[in-house]
Amino acid sequence: MNIAVDVMGGDRGCEVVIDGLMQALKKCQQIETIQIVGNEIEISQSLDRLDNIDSRFQIVHASEVLSMDDKPVEGLRKKKNCSLAVAMDLVKTGKSDAIISPGNTGGVVAAAAIKLRTLSGIDRPGIAAVLPSKNKNFILLDAGANVEGKPKHLMHYAIMGDIYAREVLGITDPKIGLMSVGTEESKGNELTQETLRLCKGLDFNFIGNIEGHNLFSDELDVVVTNGFVGNVILKSCEQLAEVLMGWLKDELSAGLMSKAGALLSQKAFRSLKKRIDPDNVGGAPLLGVNGTVTIAHGSASSLAIYNAICNTVEALDHNINKLIIDAVAKANDKLPTK
Amino acid sequence: MNIAVDVMGGDRGCEVVIDGLMQALKKCQQIETIQIVGNEIEISQSLDRLDNIDSRFQIVHASEVLSMDDKPVEGLRKKKNCSLAVAMDLVKTGKSDAIISPGNTGGVVAAAAIKLRTLSGIDRPGIAAVLPSKNKNFILLDAGANVEGKPKHLMHYAIMGDIYAREVLGITDPKIGLMSVGTEESKGNELTQETLRLCKGLDFNFIGNIEGHNLFSDELDVVVTNGFVGNVILKSCEQLAEVLMGWLKDELSAGLMSKAGALLSQKAFRSLKKRIDPDNVGGAPLLGVNGTVTIAHGSASSLAIYNAICNTVEALDHNINKLIIDAVAKANDKLPTK
Repeated sequence: MNIAVDVMGGDRGCEVVIDGLMQALKKCQQIETIQIVGNEIEISQSLDRLDNIDSRFQIVHASEVLSMDDKPVEGLRKKKNCSLAVAMDLVKTGKSDAIISPGNTGGVVAAAAIKLRTLSGIDRPGIAAVLPSKNKNFILLDAGANVEGKPKHLMHYAIMGDIYAREVLGITDPKIGLMSVGTEESKGNELTQETLRLCKGLDFNFIGNIEGHNLFSDELDVVVTNGFVGNVILKSCEQLAEVLMGWLKDELSAGLMSKAGALLSQKAFRSLKKRIDPDNVGGAPLLGVNGTVTIAHGSASSLAIYNAICNTVEALDHNINKLIIDAVAKANDKLPTK
Repeated sequence: MNIAVDVMGGDRGCEVVIDGLMQALKKCQQIETIQIVGNEIEISQSLDRLDNIDSRFQIVHASEVLSMDDKPVEGLRKKKNCSLAVAMDLVKTGKSDAIISPGNTGGVVAAAAIKLRTLSGIDRPGIAAVLPSKNKNFILLDAGANVEGKPKHLMHYAIMGDIYAREVLGITDPKIGLMSVGTEESKGNELTQETLRLCKGLDFNFIGNIEGHNLFSDELDVVVTNGFVGNVILKSCEQLAEVLMGWLKDELSAGLMSKAGALLSQKAFRSLKKRIDPDNVGGAPLLGVNGTVTIAHGSASSLAIYNAICNTVEALDHNINKLIIDAVAKANDKLPTK
């Protein structure tokens, strides 16, 4: 398999990304080529500095970069040769099987939608964010690709989340919940009520409505919601975790005794930080497009890129897009005709 | 002023609630009567056990209780003499100026909507949850009264949040943000786009779209959203804070050194817990109804009830409903006629 990586879009420069790719190549022998897309001079210099000897790297030059501040669609129109567009074209033309970009999330979604289109039977792709719960991870989707998600889209997200959880995260019989404001069937809005009806008859472990209090425990594997709500949950919770860790730090440095205690407990704090570190997961797959697309954090570390590649390889190995097309076709057949 | 308190609806029994009321009476001399609504025998026994000598308590008997498991509207229809309904009737008939209930949130919203109706110019009430940020609090509304909030409702929430922040929380020139998926004007869904247009011309410090990453900092005083999203944010963040504190505890008890450190840092952990304790705030006002209604947590402590009473007294002292009616009338005049 070949994987194209846009190494220019991230906040931390291409060397951090390439370092992660080198680690991933060591682990994943099934990768034939990693196409490193970006400024060829910068890439060559990074490969030299990192003492790369792996011949499976191929440099593909791209003269421009879609920055974090660029508006997705407008930016892609203006910067036709940006690394993201060039990498996406490699997937479109079949030269690559997958793309990873630690760049502008809206840009990746737009480029994938425009160049790859959606899978048969699916109208809108969804971002599957992978978040930690007590002893495992759970998937939240859509985390922001489709802010006006409709019931049919959410049904597709449930199907895709189920398949991703099984095939890539290795979860047996994933529990799927629909984000609502209470667990009773009567709770929710028009969107969740109709989605509930559509999901009930399907062939997966659907537990119905859930609420915010059900998150971050081990009771759920896939949480389905529209892109607006998913994005708000993801960002609010990222922010709260950061703020709480900051408050803890403040309190621990507020007195001599606390400071001494904090020194002794350093290992515990490091473990906690590691537990909630998004780099453990590496990236969020964009599900539902005709290709395998992973969006990494803008500030992704080498570890994040390594993990993003490993998950991408799993997705390709398990041919999840074929599984998604089949499951969606079956579900679409059951949709009420209007 | 007179305040009716439903002391039966909470999870912790009426004595905890009455204890909080006794503390509040000591502080708030402007209260003429607190009508304690519930089972008169239980209430009398609690007052005896707490050695009450304050003559401003008045017991109002109610034979039933709307439990946390009762469906709001159905429960209120079946249990006509529940403490919540009896307390709400005291406000309706003018015998009381305000009501506080630590009970079934949906029940309080339904009873208020049915018995008190909304203020002139307002279609839907909203719950204003008060959450901690670094050095102060901020308001999130609607936190779940109105899951299908429309642009006009959200505009009213912005106006009511502004007035509550000024008058009750004492914030000068509150900064008001509209919950969205990015700060740019183009970001959001149909609801936020239209709300943005409506709020822009109004006479308050409206900073436009915000996203989840802007929460819990001191940059905002009022966050406006519909009841579905507000409820999801509130519950997800409550849950994450609890889970994170649990993980921290796990990590700290994982080794001898960490355990020793944790002992020394006890004060810091207590401070952190206090910082995020919802009892500091006490209750969430239900804004937009023709009366002053405060919903306390089902598991509210004495401190929570004390704080809920203090905020209710502030709201009454500042006559915020009059201010809301005037501001909403002005804003409604500017609404586009369809």
